[in-house]
Amino acid sequence: MLIGVTMGDPNGIGPEIILNSFQKGEVRKDLVVIGDYQVMDFCNRLLQYQVPLNRIVDLDQKEEGKLNVFDLGLLGEKDIEIGKVSSKAGFAAKKYVEYAVSMALDGKISALVTLPVNKKAVRLTDPHFTGHTEFIAQLCSQSSYAMMLVSEKLTVAHVTTHIPLSQVAKSIDQGRIVEVINLAGEAIQMLLGRKPKIAVSGLNPHAGEDGAFGREEIEEIAPAVKEARNQGWEVEGPLSPDTVFLKAYRGEYDVVVAMYHDQGHIPVKLLDFEGGVNVTLGLKVVRTSVDHGTAFDIAYKGVANTKSFVQAFSVAEKLSKQKGRAQDR
Amino acid sequence: MLIGVTMGDPNGIGPEIILNSFQKGEVRKDLVVIGDYQVMDFCNRLLQYQVPLNRIVDLDQKEEGKLNVFDLGLLGEKDIEIGKVSSKAGFAAKKYVEYAVSMALDGKISALVTLPVNKKAVRLTDPHFTGHTEFIAQLCSQSSYAMMLVSEKLTVAHVTTHIPLSQVAKSIDQGRIVEVINLAGEAIQMLLGRKPKIAVSGLNPHAGEDGAFGREEIEEIAPAVKEARNQGWEVEGPLSPDTVFLKAYRGEYDVVVAMYHDQGHIPVKLLDFEGGVNVTLGLKVVRTSVDHGTAFDIAYKGVANTKSFVQAFSVAEKLSKQKGRAQDR
Repeated sequence: MLIGVTMGDPNGIGPEIILNSFQKGEVRKDLVVIGDYQVMDFCNRLLQYQVPLNRIVDLDQKEEGKLNVFDLGLLGEKDIEIGKVSSKAGFAAKKYVEYAVSMALDGKISALVTLPVNKKAVRLTDPHFTGHTEFIAQLCSQSSYAMMLVSEKLTVAHVTTHIPLSQVAKSIDQGRIVEVINLAGEAIQMLLGRKPKIAVSGLNPHAGEDGAFGREEIEEIAPAVKEARNQGWEVEGPLSPDTVFLKAYRGEYDVVVAMYHDQGHIPVKLLDFEGGVNVTLGLKVVRTSVDHGTAFDIAYKGVANTKSFVQAFSVAEKLSKQKGRAQDR
Repeated sequence: MLIGVTMGDPNGIGPEIILNSFQKGEVRKDLVVIGDYQVMDFCNRLLQYQVPLNRIVDLDQKEEGKLNVFDLGLLGEKDIEIGKVSSKAGFAAKKYVEYAVSMALDGKISALVTLPVNKKAVRLTDPHFTGHTEFIAQLCSQSSYAMMLVSEKLTVAHVTTHIPLSQVAKSIDQGRIVEVINLAGEAIQMLLGRKPKIAVSGLNPHAGEDGAFGREEIEEIAPAVKEARNQGWEVEGPLSPDTVFLKAYRGEYDVVVAMYHDQGHIPVKLLDFEGGVNVTLGLKVVRTSVDHGTAFDIAYKGVANTKSFVQAFSVAEKLSKQKGRAQDR
């Protein structure tokens, strides 16, 4: 079971997070970095990590005990512009992801952990790039997936994500909610090793208060919960959005299905800003990601927090152990 | 400076919260309960609080050191149905509010703290009742006000509240945002005794990401922030909704202006479920309210938490000291 880690934007905190967590023994050593060897090597020397690096261009060249870097040979040391938005770095970061996904689809790696790309940098050479997750889904030729944020304190799966708030209500659909309940339920079951307790949030204030402030709860969400329950899930809802996350945090539920981006992101980031893991559910590729950005302001200073990466790695390991099931979808 | 406290639904936790906090000395004694004497007396005996009660029908009858109950004489002991939704209780709870607001408008009390009514109970005799706050605004003949949640950890004022999520985006309007910034800014200035640092949240994921997911930030929110800054407020925004509350919680801002009900309610309730205070800004009457419901399941058991009421009382005291300014609006 080999885990692939994309290096992220070469000008950001990706390289040092990999090196630092590897050196501290926070992640299992059987991983392969997909990126640029010269960038990793430069970062290793600059921050004096003394991690034993091994440059490979074929997985057969892996060496035990070393940090194996699958070198795409895109950037040299001179291309690094610490903390800068650059088209070279954006292009390279996107290529790492492209290559890593192809390795995963070929079964060469069992899961993929991604470090942050910089959307602005990628857009300098690909103006249509909408996001890391969307790009990976596209590479997998899949349109049906869901974003889940996992943290120690709260786990939330999202029915909709990167769309304007004005489009959310019309996107709330019974079939989609059932799909997300299934995706989240299966993933949490793998992580916990038991059937999860699932909460489904309402869309409107007080979950619509019997239709007084919106009818999506009555027409879409409640029927979806019923359908999922008939499928065997232990699921409740629609629950009032302003208390369901507190209930889950207190242990009443293992996961909350949220209707839109900020409904789920606000509580997760408030409770566990540095430790969140972003999991893409429903793809052929098991993929987790750190829940932070490139942090250009602190890049190459050796101070970036490794917590989210370590958690993302651990979640990827657990999910890829039972990868078969998720792939059936 | 006399503070009026409405008793709330007689079948809920209102009466015991007043008695318990009075007995424990958690609130200043110069208050008047507006409700039913027989209900207060019954609760006092049942839960053995031994609070000295004084029944009055005129404020001149107040006695120092006692809990003065302005008796509207609507319900007797036999009408109490602990933990039940009843039309009698709903009708009475609404009458307490009606009378209290008239006292406030007549200048007989300087502020109003409300204990919870049960919306279903009120609707049994008034099907058009939309909410406590809306009702008070109507009694004040005012349509321009805002809901602010105050807690020790986070304070949030809302641009919109009890409307369907599908209606939120079209309600985001520069003028309204400026109004809420002003109302919140003035109130926080009274509470803190200094100029507040104000954050304004975006509406869309990542505050729209330069228009990629919605244009309300560009067309309404950013211009509103600029206008408010020109008026002299120290205000920043639009900030990404999924991190602005964390920033405020960490102390970067004194108050966040949220665009919709759950954007503000989710973080406040998560951080301080029992201690939140609901403040209605912009009314002729200074009004604060507990941030919980009638809690019928635990009514008359003596276990209801008094924290939110004590905070609501304290905030009402502070705001009413400088009532004049708010009334100018």
